[in-house]
Amino acid sequence: MNGADRLCETLLANGIGVCFANPGTSEMHFVAALDRNPEMRCILGLFEGVVTGAADGYGRMKDQPAATLLHTGPGLANGLANLHNARRAHSPIVNIVGDHASYHLPYDAPLTSDIDALAAPMSNWVHRVSGPDDVGAAAEAACRAARAMPGIATLILPGNAAWGEAKPAEVSRAVRPAPVPVTESTIRDVAAALRAAGSHAGLILAGTAARAAPLDAAARIAAATGARMLGEMFVARAERGRGRPPLERIVYPVDQAVEQLRDFDLLVLVGATPPVAFFAYPGKPSALARDGARLMTLSLPGEDAGAALEALAADIGAPHRLPRRPEAPPPPDGHIDGALTDEALAVLIAQGLPENAVVVDECITSVRSFYGMTAGAPPHDFVMACTGGAIGAGPPVATGAAVACPDRKVLNLQADGSAMYTLQALWTQAREKLDVVTVIFANRVYAVLQTEMRAVGVNRFGRNAERMLSLGDPALDWVALAAGMGVEGKRVDDAKGFRSALDHALSRPGPFLIEAVMS
Amino acid sequence: MNGADRLCETLLANGIGVCFANPGTSEMHFVAALDRNPEMRCILGLFEGVVTGAADGYGRMKDQPAATLLHTGPGLANGLANLHNARRAHSPIVNIVGDHASYHLPYDAPLTSDIDALAAPMSNWVHRVSGPDDVGAAAEAACRAARAMPGIATLILPGNAAWGEAKPAEVSRAVRPAPVPVTESTIRDVAAALRAAGSHAGLILAGTAARAAPLDAAARIAAATGARMLGEMFVARAERGRGRPPLERIVYPVDQAVEQLRDFDLLVLVGATPPVAFFAYPGKPSALARDGARLMTLSLPGEDAGAALEALAADIGAPHRLPRRPEAPPPPDGHIDGALTDEALAVLIAQGLPENAVVVDECITSVRSFYGMTAGAPPHDFVMACTGGAIGAGPPVATGAAVACPDRKVLNLQADGSAMYTLQALWTQAREKLDVVTVIFANRVYAVLQTEMRAVGVNRFGRNAERMLSLGDPALDWVALAAGMGVEGKRVDDAKGFRSALDHALSRPGPFLIEAVMS
Repeated sequence: MNGADRLCETLLANGIGVCFANPGTSEMHFVAALDRNPEMRCILGLFEGVVTGAADGYGRMKDQPAATLLHTGPGLANGLANLHNARRAHSPIVNIVGDHASYHLPYDAPLTSDIDALAAPMSNWVHRVSGPDDVGAAAEAACRAARAMPGIATLILPGNAAWGEAKPAEVSRAVRPAPVPVTESTIRDVAAALRAAGSHAGLILAGTAARAAPLDAAARIAAATGARMLGEMFVARAERGRGRPPLERIVYPVDQAVEQLRDFDLLVLVGATPPVAFFAYPGKPSALARDGARLMTLSLPGEDAGAALEALAADIGAPHRLPRRPEAPPPPDGHIDGALTDEALAVLIAQGLPENAVVVDECITSVRSFYGMTAGAPPHDFVMACTGGAIGAGPPVATGAAVACPDRKVLNLQADGSAMYTLQALWTQAREKLDVVTVIFANRVYAVLQTEMRAVGVNRFGRNAERMLSLGDPALDWVALAAGMGVEGKRVDDAKGFRSALDHALSRPGPFLIEAVMS
Repeated sequence: MNGADRLCETLLANGIGVCFANPGTSEMHFVAALDRNPEMRCILGLFEGVVTGAADGYGRMKDQPAATLLHTGPGLANGLANLHNARRAHSPIVNIVGDHASYHLPYDAPLTSDIDALAAPMSNWVHRVSGPDDVGAAAEAACRAARAMPGIATLILPGNAAWGEAKPAEVSRAVRPAPVPVTESTIRDVAAALRAAGSHAGLILAGTAARAAPLDAAARIAAATGARMLGEMFVARAERGRGRPPLERIVYPVDQAVEQLRDFDLLVLVGATPPVAFFAYPGKPSALARDGARLMTLSLPGEDAGAALEALAADIGAPHRLPRRPEAPPPPDGHIDGALTDEALAVLIAQGLPENAVVVDECITSVRSFYGMTAGAPPHDFVMACTGGAIGAGPPVATGAAVACPDRKVLNLQADGSAMYTLQALWTQAREKLDVVTVIFANRVYAVLQTEMRAVGVNRFGRNAERMLSLGDPALDWVALAAGMGVEGKRVDDAKGFRSALDHALSRPGPFLIEAVMS
């Protein structure tokens, strides 16, 4: 048995049965090993950003890692932007990067690069396999590391470690690490602080704390103390909709976010990081909480947020059952007509949202309306694709989510500008016949940047700004782009057309793309 | 004047008038400055791999740097693969990467990453601007560094260095560094070695040595000593065709390359690196020269290869004029009919090649035939896009070459698999109305990998190998993909159709794509 076979066997033994891949010559022995193990499902991406983004989407929905397979430094580099998002989302991924045979590296062949250096910034864990006999233990450690953070465990596999003969060895099955419990003293301290702060306290719920059961516990705590439930600006995955406690998202514009948080004396972080401005602006603060506000951490990513919230609820003496509260209003049921504005699209999508859908959002400037009107929509998962701000996460994350959840509809709400970074994901959706409906919000500009330019004080764009911030001239034809990759699509420019296209797209299996030309 | 304006001014003063860009929020002040300087030509790429690849193509054709503009760590990451190719091609690029304001970095906002670490492996020079007063000197140093290597000078521009007020200062114009001269003793040593080795010597000519005048000098040396003229496997740019001394390329398959170099006692590197196997294979050597062969360096990249070859010719007493030699045969003039094989396409393209064309090649498995039959074709530049082996260089390099050479036809010979990595380049070609004709060699497989799989001993592919090495199911529709980005295209599947499509494409201005469905 060679190292590649050992790797494959160890991944399978550790419950990793999906490999998103874009292999190259140095990975041929691993590809051959994957071919000998048909129980591993190999899914090709035609660009590495698709591969890593799909692994991110899979990890977010499954809470378990998929493997990736990338080709040397440049292949890893192409996948780094979406690994950055995945790392910020605390997605578990076993990220396998093939390299030259170790003895070949000193010759500095053209494809040689410092893979270890490239991997470090976007990985939580990096290991270079030293030889065929290291493969088993290294792969097991990678599986364990990816789950423990959860995060990105990058395993660099030299060609000769893959093709060399590995000594016989037991295949170890990694014990799946249990979430680390939060200490009792932390629970007690947070409980005391929440009691003292009353309605001037906020719970920022992120990571696994944004799932239905922990949200219920948080809602009971909030009912008992008067604290408010807040969500991160870029949530990795939230379970929300009818019957689930709503999260008030911390907003993106700095001034508004500062205003939103002004009243809080205490912010309790549950799997969340301290709220900070996404970007710096001259004269505006970086930290969003007001000076003197107290930040306390209930749980870090990888810690058991659900159990911590339950224990906190018990310590506080919160009611055992969720108190009756006013139901969030269902989506507006009025008939929408005419042009496709942000608002109109939000209403139309909210009205058409199927039960148990996975909504993958990367529509950037258009998301606010949608989020606001779907707190009482049918239960759904809401996934903000670009958790790390790296553009082009939406289509790949939707792809991986659909692989993870074959029985659910995935709805990718997608800006046109960001879709262009990873449009190759559509091909994988077509090949794997995934139930992804992509809605392209075709405003044909980098709208967020036009806003930011105005914030810089430039209100009339000259030729250079115009050319850098507009996607027109020529307009992208998304129906043609989708067709080019085997995905059926339809262009619509009014509410009636959109409603009928969405109904059609959701009623059929497989991928579909709707280009919503906005006004 | 703020730092961003100073940067713009310094770039212009140093002869950099083109900026390939994909900006983001942290670069808005630089975008505003570019907007105030309309003499800078800003060209938008809808993905950063297009931006860096286009800068590479521009640099190869102009021997002068363009600037890039990338957005933080993930934007840089997306551009790294093509920076890797550019670095290997010794292309000059001033690579500008925006970052958060320096005081914002400790807050670890979502888009924060270690840009310095990411930049290092694919850069020859990296500098983080410390503040607005550092911008001018830093930009000048970057221009100088990019030209001197030549190579990738990465300048990291924090937001507050861009928006902060810079003290008044002279804008310095960098002295364009002259190529470093080769020492007389090196010339003498190489001359002596060449005389001794006679016909058992090879000159490997790369970088600027592969241009018409240095090739003439090399040919005179070869005529005097009996040495053979060799070219690198992945040449950055060679001037070739009718009337120019031909280069025999060192071939890709290891066994054949070893055989090709077996006879050489001496290999003189002129801007070239020692010949090594592109990949390692079990039981095959990494170095291609035979044991005991002597490798001597006449000139390194950045050294004056042309002057060194002239001096060498003089030392050797080579004839002052190029001896008459048998002309390379013109492309076959026979009528090609029927299916589009590698061979048929090569003949058809060779027959249709316009005078003074720039051929940008990334057709991977299909290039050999074309190269072989165009030594006597009309003079043209031959550019191997993926000098570093990073896939997806072709369309962007062709884009940048067309910006650099608006009066020449650019012909991008492009494999379908590699085109998918950076297909967004077509949109930039459409927007800028560039004279690029893209020929997609649509074999619908990763042919190079299928060959490599067989080399690993796998002759019957199972489901996993089949799914990872084939691009069918569904087939890509390149005419639709091009149309989606505003580029007209045509699909052809026989010689007659191809000939007429190529004639049409070359007869009109602006970009055109031919999908050549291969048999």
